[in-house]
Amino acid sequence: MRARIGLIAIVWVACATLPAQTSQSETAIRQVLDQQVQAWNRHDLEGFMAGYWKSPELTFFSGGTVTRGWQPTLDRYRQRYQSVGTEMGTLEFTDINVEMLGPAAAFVRGRFHLKMASGKDSSGIFTLIFRKLPAGWRIVHDHTSS
Amino acid sequence: MRARIGLIAIVWVACATLPAQTSQSETAIRQVLDQQVQAWNRHDLEGFMAGYWKSPELTFFSGGTVTRGWQPTLDRYRQRYQSVGTEMGTLEFTDINVEMLGPAAAFVRGRFHLKMASGKDSSGIFTLIFRKLPAGWRIVHDHTSS
Repeated sequence: MRARIGLIAIVWVACATLPAQTSQSETAIRQVLDQQVQAWNRHDLEGFMAGYWKSPELTFFSGGTVTRGWQPTLDRYRQRYQSVGTEMGTLEFTDINVEMLGPAAAFVRGRFHLKMASGKDSSGIFTLIFRKLPAGWRIVHDHTSS
Repeated sequence: MRARIGLIAIVWVACATLPAQTSQSETAIRQVLDQQVQAWNRHDLEGFMAGYWKSPELTFFSGGTVTRGWQPTLDRYRQRYQSVGTEMGTLEFTDINVEMLGPAAAFVRGRFHLKMASGKDSSGIFTLIFRKLPAGWRIVHDHTSS
């Protein structure tokens, strides 16, 4: 009997704290995205990349191209936005939708807009998979297209 | 004391059955994808769409376009692959990677190849979010690009 009451109490506490956890997780995920935008707009690519899982297992799908690993993803950004004749522009995310998939995973849908001094603006849509890692919430997979 | 032993037993059983559940879930998810390919290749679009969450909340990202809802997604497939002057071709999925995000959620990365009688083959990459719903494992979000 005591075992049963103990178990009911544990389940009750777990269920009661779940919505609060979800809200906290969503706030933490949105903070990662906000920090990425701020880093991009001060032209700090390493700061922007801090939102991604620092692992060779990170995957980045852009259009029809697959990039594997944190370092190759940073190199790709450097090539496209910090090499001669390129610019980083001003980044904005809109229509952000965070959906929890459990206590330690979520997916995010949204749009990016990149305003360029040259006038060659670009925009598109993305799907991000977030996982709660020891370091905090990080993007483990990014799929972007336009 | 009995309560503690009971709780330890529950946690032990839960942990011991987790890998088996993961493997079962991955098998079930791969079956949904196999059934989609089979349905496509017998030109059964409704059968193909059975793998998707039958909800207005289903989202389908293709290139830069967002489609919301199961019915609009089916209509889009009909327009692109079953209207005059189009063909469905032969579909194949490769490089399928299923990654569990909890007991009731997973994401899938993979490639599609569409072989057309006209010779106008197409291929691309996709990210799928699966959820375990009362009806079984279903795609709740699809992001495809090429």
